[in-house]
Amino acid sequence: MNAPAHVGLLVVGGGIGGMAAALAAARAGRPVHLLERAAQFTEIGAGLQVGPNAVRVLADLGLYPRVRDVAVFPEGGVFMDALTGEHLTTLDVGPAFRDRYGAPYLVMHRSDLLEILLEACRSENRITLENGREVTHVAHLPDGAVQVDCADGSRFRAQAVIGADGLNSRVRGLVSADEPVCSGYAAYRGIMPMGDLDAHIGEASVVIWIGPGMHLVQYPIRRGELYNTVAVFRSDAYARGEADWGGPVELDERFADACPEVRRGIQHVDRSRYWKTYDRDPLSTWTSGRVTLLGDAAHPMLQYLGQGACQALEDAAALGKRFAEYGDDYDKVLADYERQRLHKASRAQTAARTWGEIWHTDGIGRLLRNYIFTSRAHDDYTHTDWLYLPEPAQPKVGV
Amino acid sequence: MNAPAHVGLLVVGGGIGGMAAALAAARAGRPVHLLERAAQFTEIGAGLQVGPNAVRVLADLGLYPRVRDVAVFPEGGVFMDALTGEHLTTLDVGPAFRDRYGAPYLVMHRSDLLEILLEACRSENRITLENGREVTHVAHLPDGAVQVDCADGSRFRAQAVIGADGLNSRVRGLVSADEPVCSGYAAYRGIMPMGDLDAHIGEASVVIWIGPGMHLVQYPIRRGELYNTVAVFRSDAYARGEADWGGPVELDERFADACPEVRRGIQHVDRSRYWKTYDRDPLSTWTSGRVTLLGDAAHPMLQYLGQGACQALEDAAALGKRFAEYGDDYDKVLADYERQRLHKASRAQTAARTWGEIWHTDGIGRLLRNYIFTSRAHDDYTHTDWLYLPEPAQPKVGV
Repeated sequence: MNAPAHVGLLVVGGGIGGMAAALAAARAGRPVHLLERAAQFTEIGAGLQVGPNAVRVLADLGLYPRVRDVAVFPEGGVFMDALTGEHLTTLDVGPAFRDRYGAPYLVMHRSDLLEILLEACRSENRITLENGREVTHVAHLPDGAVQVDCADGSRFRAQAVIGADGLNSRVRGLVSADEPVCSGYAAYRGIMPMGDLDAHIGEASVVIWIGPGMHLVQYPIRRGELYNTVAVFRSDAYARGEADWGGPVELDERFADACPEVRRGIQHVDRSRYWKTYDRDPLSTWTSGRVTLLGDAAHPMLQYLGQGACQALEDAAALGKRFAEYGDDYDKVLADYERQRLHKASRAQTAARTWGEIWHTDGIGRLLRNYIFTSRAHDDYTHTDWLYLPEPAQPKVGV
Repeated sequence: MNAPAHVGLLVVGGGIGGMAAALAAARAGRPVHLLERAAQFTEIGAGLQVGPNAVRVLADLGLYPRVRDVAVFPEGGVFMDALTGEHLTTLDVGPAFRDRYGAPYLVMHRSDLLEILLEACRSENRITLENGREVTHVAHLPDGAVQVDCADGSRFRAQAVIGADGLNSRVRGLVSADEPVCSGYAAYRGIMPMGDLDAHIGEASVVIWIGPGMHLVQYPIRRGELYNTVAVFRSDAYARGEADWGGPVELDERFADACPEVRRGIQHVDRSRYWKTYDRDPLSTWTSGRVTLLGDAAHPMLQYLGQGACQALEDAAALGKRFAEYGDDYDKVLADYERQRLHKASRAQTAARTWGEIWHTDGIGRLLRNYIFTSRAHDDYTHTDWLYLPEPAQPKVGV
């Protein structure tokens, strides 16, 4: 075992949340050490929705010009009934939306955002990035510092640790003994050149086809050069308790009753790979001593709000602001960060579950859902304000 | 076997629909013979909701002054969440409602209405009422007349027959071989003196507490002297296929999670007697030769719209108008009556099922239902117009 490397702030995990947190902390003057277990910084997955709450964060980090160049700015989020093909409602994300929330709604390739964050971290001399460091153990030291051990035998002594290590976070074990919660839904993804697209699909919008136990999401990414498709469905095999579930036979069965547009859309996903989707229950705290959690490690959520990465970016921004305010007073930084973020991120976890149930409901629920959707005005932002409006300044308590 | 009695119009069944039909036909100049199988004209059941569509019929028959004297005029239909006790919405049936529909909404004792109809029939010398005549067989005769046999050996030869013999209609067998459809819900009823009422219950409204698989309806009747309670619930024993279902043990189980107000309300039903509720699927025709159906015999419906008796009264009014127009041309009368009534009554059957599902939904359906209910304006009549507005004059086709 080597002697530990002494570092100030140590971030575990080099995904979108960890990178953004490192960047925000560094911009606030903190030296940051970031450990990523993979040999390279890469992002699996495909399309990424970035709501105005997260676009504001990217702008504050100075990244908006680069993001803008590779993003697509949809006109709306269009909800369609996946069984009948009926248009249900559109969330207008045009000028009125941008004015209200101070930023646009955009969609992009996840790897494009990761690339932009990585380049920004590399050009920030307060940040040290290390690959191939799989954190295996995190422990409080008697003086309040934190010891972090990696699988390769490397050891760090950090003044504070941010666990940004995702759904299956190792760091979270210091805070909670909970386990991921399986949704019983499987997700299939696909990306294709825009030129291969059926002419009739709305090219300028995020189109969401919702139906009983399934949905299909389609939108353009990367300057409109690529078209992203995600198909998600509830597995009957999972409900029966079978270990092998979510395969392409079930995919086809679940979408058999869908309208022709959706059945065509399903052809565009990669049938060789799929994801079983998980989240976790909200926690009452993310912090233990000088260790806190961020992004999916803190509040993994189902994808229905398109807010997983966005909430991680909000976390990073909040952390950066606390560092700017409190400098190296890590206890204050961590406590105030958690106080600012816990409520909204927990609400996003809960709301994402409910939103998914609303998408996937059948019978009388579907009837009521469609009534609500078809009745609402396209520029009714009542239900998006909590998510997209800037939060009022937090009262400062006990610091 | 006696020689058949020759009659013109024969009505089978002396409930609200049959009486009203006899009265409407007689007022239009037709001699009417009405057969009731019971030894007396009586009405079981308790409270009766009379929407403005039916109040208009009673007014046209000259019965409104007598009805008004025994009715109660609620201010609204108040919907409450049976689990939380939360107020969900009110359908304002005050002046704006009365103006819109040309009549008030009222509630009364069922036996009060039957008594009023019976007295009117008795004072109408074109109507012959006979008790103790249980119709056992109805058959078309070669000349187009209809032969009706009773259990007591009496036989009638009628120019036309109106089957107003309720859910288990014997006459309906000439038109359709269908069977009643069991809802799997049981209903308990109770009437108590208004003086025994808990002070806090809204005395001036129809109060409907809705919850998962159950509901409770409360309103005053008989000039406000009595208070009517109906408790309805879905039986798990029925769902399991058990023959013995709907008993008071299940009643208590289903309402165990209800709010205190509902649990108190349940105390007011008679636990010694309950009804298993049934309806039937809509038919494509009610008529076979010179036999047609009316009221529950034609379109039995679940009680959730409070429209069973109201639709029967609409039937009676339509029949009376056709007799006024076509005299004794029974073929025209029956065809045109059915053409005017079939669509709306069928819609009421279907809508009542859906409305019940909306009341009884759980989970995400309940969330969406409560959102819709709490969002609507009390004087939003969008969803009641089809039921309560006078129908436009029907186009005459092929007569």
